[in-house]
Amino acid sequence: MNGDLYITNVRPMGGEATSVTVQDGRIASYGGDAVPGADVVDGGGAIVVPGLVEAHTHLDKSLLGMRWYHNDVGPRLIDKIDNERAQKRLLGIDPARQSARQVVLSVAQGSTHIRSHVDVDTDMGLSGIEGVLKTREQYRGVVDIDIVAFPQSGMLIRPGTVELMEEALKLGADVIGGLDPSAIDRDPKGHLDVVFGLADRYGCPVDIHLHEPAELGAFSMELIIERTKALGLQGRVTVSHAFCLGMADQDYVASLIDALAEARVHILTTAPASRPVPPVKRLVDAGVVVAAGSDGIRDTWGPYGNADMLERAVLVGLRNNFRRDDEVALALDVCTHGGARMMDLDGYGLDVGCRADFVLLDGETLAEAVVSRRPRRLVVKNGRVVARDGRALVEAP
Amino acid sequence: MNGDLYITNVRPMGGEATSVTVQDGRIASYGGDAVPGADVVDGGGAIVVPGLVEAHTHLDKSLLGMRWYHNDVGPRLIDKIDNERAQKRLLGIDPARQSARQVVLSVAQGSTHIRSHVDVDTDMGLSGIEGVLKTREQYRGVVDIDIVAFPQSGMLIRPGTVELMEEALKLGADVIGGLDPSAIDRDPKGHLDVVFGLADRYGCPVDIHLHEPAELGAFSMELIIERTKALGLQGRVTVSHAFCLGMADQDYVASLIDALAEARVHILTTAPASRPVPPVKRLVDAGVVVAAGSDGIRDTWGPYGNADMLERAVLVGLRNNFRRDDEVALALDVCTHGGARMMDLDGYGLDVGCRADFVLLDGETLAEAVVSRRPRRLVVKNGRVVARDGRALVEAP
Ligand SMILES: [Zn+2]
Ligand SMILES: [Zn+2]
Repeated sequence: MNGDLYITNVRPMGGEATSVTVQDGRIASYGGDAVPGADVVDGGGAIVVPGLVEAHTHLDKSLLGMRWYHNDVGPRLIDKIDNERAQKRLLGIDPARQSARQVVLSVAQGSTHIRSHVDVDTDMGLSGIEGVLKTREQYRGVVDIDIVAFPQSGMLIRPGTVELMEEALKLGADVIGGLDPSAIDRDPKGHLDVVFGLADRYGCPVDIHLHEPAELGAFSMELIIERTKALGLQGRVTVSHAFCLGMADQDYVASLIDALAEARVHILTTAPASRPVPPVKRLVDAGVVVAAGSDGIRDTWGPYGNADMLERAVLVGLRNNFRRDDEVALALDVCTHGGARMMDLDGYGLDVGCRADFVLLDGETLAEAVVSRRPRRLVVKNGRVVARDGRALVEAP
Repeated sequence: MNGDLYITNVRPMGGEATSVTVQDGRIASYGGDAVPGADVVDGGGAIVVPGLVEAHTHLDKSLLGMRWYHNDVGPRLIDKIDNERAQKRLLGIDPARQSARQVVLSVAQGSTHIRSHVDVDTDMGLSGIEGVLKTREQYRGVVDIDIVAFPQSGMLIRPGTVELMEEALKLGADVIGGLDPSAIDRDPKGHLDVVFGLADRYGCPVDIHLHEPAELGAFSMELIIERTKALGLQGRVTVSHAFCLGMADQDYVASLIDALAEARVHILTTAPASRPVPPVKRLVDAGVVVAAGSDGIRDTWGPYGNADMLERAVLVGLRNNFRRDDEVALALDVCTHGGARMMDLDGYGLDVGCRADFVLLDGETLAEAVVSRRPRRLVVKNGRVVARDGRALVEAP
């Protein structure tokens, strides 16, 4: 065994059956003969798709594996934010342990790349970032983790937070985050100037949580687009949630979509059922990159979520009324290539020469495999098998 | 063995552990000793909930177990209706076989009661009704099936359909259905007079698909409420989907909810993510019975659905932004007691004396069991075990 892989009888994207050869962590060829010394795996007619991309989650705050948290939190956003800060201490939510648990669940479900927002605040300081950095190191090679420094409790309204955000970037965070510049921080210009100022100085991408509704969110989005262009950050900025793109004023939405496309600002959706949402097909048709994520998984905010990006594709489909096979394929594309483009991943995909990050799905057709969401037959990361039959080959704490 | 059951170590609704004794198909007692001759089952600490109620589906049209149907149907409602009528012949969708397949899936997932709308039209005649009647007979004792004669292709716009609807009731359908009196049949008064006239003459309940949006649907709903009261059908009428209750005009919605409560008209929701929806908590708080269902499962309308009413509870929760444990419990209540009240089931529930129709769920708490949706440990119907570890003990064709 030389670490190479030869998988027989697989159907890339549900197409014709072939074999795939993996060498040096990359897809070396399709349909060739087994290379000497390679580990031979029977693909059993499975469908191959690129590694699923969990493009928005919160690894530091899941309660996976802990005692069930009885949720009776109040209805406002600030209730949930304040409650979480308190529960972190009360429940002992250890960011390293909890992120490791969620990472292992993600790997089992076929995610090969994760972008995690990680809380930075004046109570916890950088302990969240440190914990997720530890997990990233521990699972290096098994999954790639992109870390966003995220001011969950507000930034300008909590003095000291800006300095911590900058420290987070120095420590190893990859992306500078932001949160509702008007609704939470009460100062859209001030908030965005700080976020984009850090992006400019540290040369890092931007990913801003924008829950602000309708015209308020649209105004914040315009400020984001202006700064993206002024600083030459086209292709490096993501607006997460972007509920304003689900607003009623369709002319305004059209103008925003055009502006996003021109500035190459990406949109991340979790496809929530209870909130207005960005219209996925219109955005994609306009050339905007759309990615998807689970957001928080079983945390103090809510009990749902299981890190399954095929289930997320189904939720994207249900939310956008995708019924046709080509629409289900689009939902999957959002959960694979969309996330890869958003995170600017190098060598992503199923082409020869790409990194061997892929998943084998049991299913008759691509759409059938997505909607059925069976346990993943095989997950390959960097050319190595990291999960089989729905179980990760790495352990969670 | 005398057919009695004694299940140790179970937690009704997630409460204290106890045992449950089942005799003569009913819940005989909790916490007693094993009766002689009873089949003893280790409950393993599982949570017991009443049998799940699939209160709105279409057993006759699922494509389960058939070759994958590649969906490229047009976007309009009428495209889907016309396509389906054509595909029934082209694909050979046999209502008896297909309903049996879906029934077995439902049983495996813990549904003990199903209400199925079944197409009646001038192309297919009563073959759908006959097929589902056959399945009902075949699985008698394993699951209860309530059949709605459903004019999927319109009623007044397709002469001959009214007569077939009446024939369906004579043949064994339990409920008279209806469909978008204005949007499809183009004659709200005429449509509803026929539907309620048949209900009056045959003494049967009513269940009307109402997709009509906002003020149009509200007008139809008012006509339904008027007829319910005029004919003394309080408690016997259901409006399925009722998207108009998700409309923007909150004063109008409030007046409709009051009127529904007064006339004891029930609401059925599938909690679709892409459409306006009835506000579950407001309806329940006003005293309106709210039930839930899967609607079509993997049919020519769309590829989704798996007959899992715990997943439906999660979708109800996601759609209604239910996050607290008491809210998750409400979502489950909609998928159990709500459906039972809508269908006026006799002896439903976990009380001593109730019919022994229940499900054992693995989970730490009730909310945890719902959101985790693990394979059902045990499904009991009429005091007999009908499914175990996610598999039905009856066969599908
Ligand atoms: Zn988030
Ligand atoms: Zn229906």
